[in-house]
Amino acid sequence: MTSTQVGRVDLVGGGPGPADLMTVRAQRLLGEADVIVADRLGPFDELRAHIPEDVLVIDVGKRPGHHPVPQARINAMLVEHALAGRRVVRLKGGDPFVFGRGGEEVIACQEAGVPVSVTPGISSAIAVPQAAGIPVTHRGVASRVQVIIGPERPAGTMLAAMADPEVTTVVLMGVAAIPRVAVSALDAGVSALTPVAIVENGTTPQQRTIRTTLGSLVADARENAVTNPAVIVIGAVAAEGLLLPGGLRAVSTA
Amino acid sequence: MTSTQVGRVDLVGGGPGPADLMTVRAQRLLGEADVIVADRLGPFDELRAHIPEDVLVIDVGKRPGHHPVPQARINAMLVEHALAGRRVVRLKGGDPFVFGRGGEEVIACQEAGVPVSVTPGISSAIAVPQAAGIPVTHRGVASRVQVIIGPERPAGTMLAAMADPEVTTVVLMGVAAIPRVAVSALDAGVSALTPVAIVENGTTPQQRTIRTTLGSLVADARENAVTNPAVIVIGAVAAEGLLLPGGLRAVSTA
Repeated sequence: MTSTQVGRVDLVGGGPGPADLMTVRAQRLLGEADVIVADRLGPFDELRAHIPEDVLVIDVGKRPGHHPVPQARINAMLVEHALAGRRVVRLKGGDPFVFGRGGEEVIACQEAGVPVSVTPGISSAIAVPQAAGIPVTHRGVASRVQVIIGPERPAGTMLAAMADPEVTTVVLMGVAAIPRVAVSALDAGVSALTPVAIVENGTTPQQRTIRTTLGSLVADARENAVTNPAVIVIGAVAAEGLLLPGGLRAVSTA
Repeated sequence: MTSTQVGRVDLVGGGPGPADLMTVRAQRLLGEADVIVADRLGPFDELRAHIPEDVLVIDVGKRPGHHPVPQARINAMLVEHALAGRRVVRLKGGDPFVFGRGGEEVIACQEAGVPVSVTPGISSAIAVPQAAGIPVTHRGVASRVQVIIGPERPAGTMLAAMADPEVTTVVLMGVAAIPRVAVSALDAGVSALTPVAIVENGTTPQQRTIRTTLGSLVADARENAVTNPAVIVIGAVAAEGLLLPGGLRAVSTA
């Protein structure tokens, strides 16, 4: 018998922000961790004060003025700590497999012979619109959802789907891409009157929703000085009043 | 003061099945409920034995040989119990706003003056593929996701997106629609070699994954006697071995 056994890595979806929007399983795994490798998105800030002192916490997230830790370095870190016999939780915002690069971390662990599990998290793509009272699907209004990320170049099939009145388009990490997405969509014939909602800091106490249209998106985003994290919803479900007949207040989500 | 105060309704996403894939918030709200109106999908079966006897449990889900309760009746039930001063939890499988008709329940509550909140849940659209080791996005492989439901007629823009090699298509409630989806896709020029995975009973101990291609989908689904609940993933991420180099075992998710 060797004195060092291999540990394990759990990729854990932390959800959109509030710690109570983590799963029960995620909470349990965090409590069992020797090492937590965390992004800044998700519940990390709220949790940080509650993590016992003997747990090693490694913050690999972006911060203003700091470059994020490269993916290859994160992969190496997970493997290294697990091979040293530790239980590693890789805490990610949202879900590990929705633009979270979780697949790359899984591969790195498997190639190194480290046991790896994935625990899903609430994706911001759904929960952030919801927190602003926007259902990504709604009978008679939207019967399909496409989820994209801002940094990706808008493809023809994506713009065609955006022009389909039955489709909801959700853009993650999209603030910097707003001008490109808006111009591409208008050029592709998507109606300038298509409703758009920008949900900034969704699910947090700083949540702010800006309702606009595709034609006014660029100007309204600029005027309101929108910043990340923000989720942009394009489509009929983003129209003001969809769930709020008679001018009632927004759906409470707490 | 009146003796009867209005209660409230919480629409709660129960996630894909296991009770520990509910959020911490969902668990708390269930513990505070006077009335639970539940679907059969999600964690209901696992939870049922643990619900205190003084909580009224109403099962409105489909069962073999029973019609589901109509949506209008569910809406009326939620309102009625809340107006009688009770705390009502509407427990839904997955997420309330992803093909869950949650928006209609929100409207019914708001029209009746009943306070209503929404708590997101882990959507099967993401968690079920993940439980089979399939990331819906993966760098260099899939940069966009579309989520559809089987009963919906395949639209042209949906099929065009399906033909785009960078898109992952997730079909919910899709078993009955397999022949229609496959024929429409092939007719629209989607490659017969496009990888497809059928994940039956995903995230549960009965989980079974069938890997096939678009060209063989109909035959393989029939041969394996696939039944609902199942999630169908169409696209490059569904290929066997994406996260499993060297023939390693599937990603553990427990």
